[in-house]
Amino acid sequence: MDRATLRSVAAKLFADVAACSRDGEAITREGYGPTESSALALLEAFAQREGLMTARDAAQNLVLSLPDEASGAIMYVGSHLDSVPQGGNFDGLAGVIAGLLCLVDFRREGERPRRPVRVLGLRGEESAWFGKAYMGSSALLGKLSSEDLDLRHRSDARTLAEAMAHIGVEVERVRSGERLLDVDGAAAYLELHIEQGPVLVAGKWPTAIVTGIRGNIRHKQVVCRGEAGHSGAVPRSLRRDAVLATAAMMHRLDEHWAEWLERGLDLVLTFGIVSTDPRSHAMSRIPGEVAFSFEVRSESRETLGAFYELLHTECNSVAAERNVRFEFDRRLESPPARLDERWVARLLELSRRLGLPPETVPSGAGHDAAMFAAAGVPCGMIFIRNEHGSHNPHEAMDLDDFVRGVELLRLALREPV
Amino acid sequence: MDRATLRSVAAKLFADVAACSRDGEAITREGYGPTESSALALLEAFAQREGLMTARDAAQNLVLSLPDEASGAIMYVGSHLDSVPQGGNFDGLAGVIAGLLCLVDFRREGERPRRPVRVLGLRGEESAWFGKAYMGSSALLGKLSSEDLDLRHRSDARTLAEAMAHIGVEVERVRSGERLLDVDGAAAYLELHIEQGPVLVAGKWPTAIVTGIRGNIRHKQVVCRGEAGHSGAVPRSLRRDAVLATAAMMHRLDEHWAEWLERGLDLVLTFGIVSTDPRSHAMSRIPGEVAFSFEVRSESRETLGAFYELLHTECNSVAAERNVRFEFDRRLESPPARLDERWVARLLELSRRLGLPPETVPSGAGHDAAMFAAAGVPCGMIFIRNEHGSHNPHEAMDLDDFVRGVELLRLALREPV
Repeated sequence: MDRATLRSVAAKLFADVAACSRDGEAITREGYGPTESSALALLEAFAQREGLMTARDAAQNLVLSLPDEASGAIMYVGSHLDSVPQGGNFDGLAGVIAGLLCLVDFRREGERPRRPVRVLGLRGEESAWFGKAYMGSSALLGKLSSEDLDLRHRSDARTLAEAMAHIGVEVERVRSGERLLDVDGAAAYLELHIEQGPVLVAGKWPTAIVTGIRGNIRHKQVVCRGEAGHSGAVPRSLRRDAVLATAAMMHRLDEHWAEWLERGLDLVLTFGIVSTDPRSHAMSRIPGEVAFSFEVRSESRETLGAFYELLHTECNSVAAERNVRFEFDRRLESPPARLDERWVARLLELSRRLGLPPETVPSGAGHDAAMFAAAGVPCGMIFIRNEHGSHNPHEAMDLDDFVRGVELLRLALREPV
Repeated sequence: MDRATLRSVAAKLFADVAACSRDGEAITREGYGPTESSALALLEAFAQREGLMTARDAAQNLVLSLPDEASGAIMYVGSHLDSVPQGGNFDGLAGVIAGLLCLVDFRREGERPRRPVRVLGLRGEESAWFGKAYMGSSALLGKLSSEDLDLRHRSDARTLAEAMAHIGVEVERVRSGERLLDVDGAAAYLELHIEQGPVLVAGKWPTAIVTGIRGNIRHKQVVCRGEAGHSGAVPRSLRRDAVLATAAMMHRLDEHWAEWLERGLDLVLTFGIVSTDPRSHAMSRIPGEVAFSFEVRSESRETLGAFYELLHTECNSVAAERNVRFEFDRRLESPPARLDERWVARLLELSRRLGLPPETVPSGAGHDAAMFAAAGVPCGMIFIRNEHGSHNPHEAMDLDDFVRGVELLRLALREPV
């Protein structure tokens, strides 16, 4: 397919999937929920119309392939189909559509790539839904624990296991830690994704090659407990105000963060969710309780661990000063990942050949590729320029940049490492 | 009635009202809602059984009186029947039951006090419901503005005017600013209330006499707006994190508060409600928005105004440093009130006579008495010892203390200023 055809097919697919996952001005595709399933079904139907083979693995991820393929180790291409609540259309979806377009192109052109290709439309990558990231790829790679499966949905009582069972996942196989994908038979895992930061826009690069993926340590919910009381009646010295205690702790960690950056460490700190208890909200009530999420990201496992210790140190210190206590739920962790050096080199070489900038960037955000890398599969990632970040409705990827990225991915599948 | 009878009648009334307003382990009586109405109806029916006269004013407050009364300026006794969400049973209710018991006692003993007595069961004193305190007494005194009537309920779209109309309030008379109570014909307003702070418990005083009531300045909702984004992908310098900005601002005000107290100023600071937007909650999303309430209380109008200015100064400063903005809803204000000096003296004298401690305390919390005082009615207040503060389910008033307070109130009605 020429560039104009690729562009128009892509535009139609992005628009069709967006139409089934609109949420006001934003996009919401819930991991293991109906809008994510609609996106899978829509791409599956399109693939079938194009004469591709479609299947679901035992974790209900979408698997697309060519009807006539080479034998040997398999080239996986994938990304995820869910979004965060009130997110954008391109985060995740772009990578699945890119892989799908490569297959459609091979099929339309009657081309048989050197290695078999499987395009994965993964489910549940976003931690927003159950507090756990990479659920689809973790299930595939036998890395979803019983504890993970017992995590509860952000807004109802459903567990991840129940949500999975509801859409037909073979939960017991997942729970047993069985690998649903033959890792030894995997030649590589490639993922195209929008950049979620400002580097490519600043560098005027339509694409860039990813070198590594930040890991993180998270708590879905930390609760600071003090004591509720009438705001007018309890003097400052006797108060156990959970909000002012939490503000003090957050402010200290924010100051540590700034200092660590000055020391040249890679670190990101986010309290994405903060809330007093809505059942007892009152302006004139000393807040007895506040719940918040915690996330620290870094390329370095050591930095992650050390900053996480600092969270506990500061919580303990504030707890002692202000007569409150901090209660932590389960610690969630995604280790940092290095992408395959040979693949980085190959993608840079192919970029040069296509007139694309031979630039590398680290990924501040996590990706399913991190799970494949951790399982020992050689991984490569292509970033596409994108404005306004992601996890918000204002993501802006230019389709022309996307098509250049698809061309690079197609070339990589033709000429793998 | 003797002390034992007073105690058992009181116990039954408290238990009956609690039974119709249980909310888990706590008490919830919603201002202008069904549980508040049930409490009114229950006390009204009891008063009728005791041969008292009952009525509702045009704002649907409960008005109780003796069937055979003296003429002349009226002694009002009142407090409120609503609670905060998940609050306790005594805050407000104690004062209404105390007044009612005085009438029952006069009636049973065939005694006719020197002045006519009206006991008011006021509605909607708590700001938790519509963001505005003293709604019932404000309506009565012609001080509920159109803006107030347009305030919306904490959890549904209903306005205060709609909630009032629904239970039969003559909203247009309220809106017109008409005084539903003849202030010139009021001899005094007396209110008995649990103490909401720790002073009486510390002093081992069953009762004490209130000298003044703190005023406040409040915002139901201030919104800090930054920009949402993927937590891993936006470097610290480019972030517009609404939570860390708000934490920094709160922490600075908390430090100012400590300094002002050291300078001897009377001041209380509370951010009772804090919440990121639940629709877009995600651990890995830079919070683009956080909403919070603000309240400052002081006995001094000057201190209130100056600290409120400081709120704006610090918000502006944080906004500039962190590229966020703070949006304020309507400023709500309750001026501080002085209670009537002659009544304070009289209540102290009567306390002495009853063997109660002749002690005075300021009230950190607001009370309907503040509205009557602002309207020029001479006001007196009796505090009853209470543990664990108020606005929580753990309020603990000893009924023996309450009965001593009722005896003091009864004597005050017999021997008014």
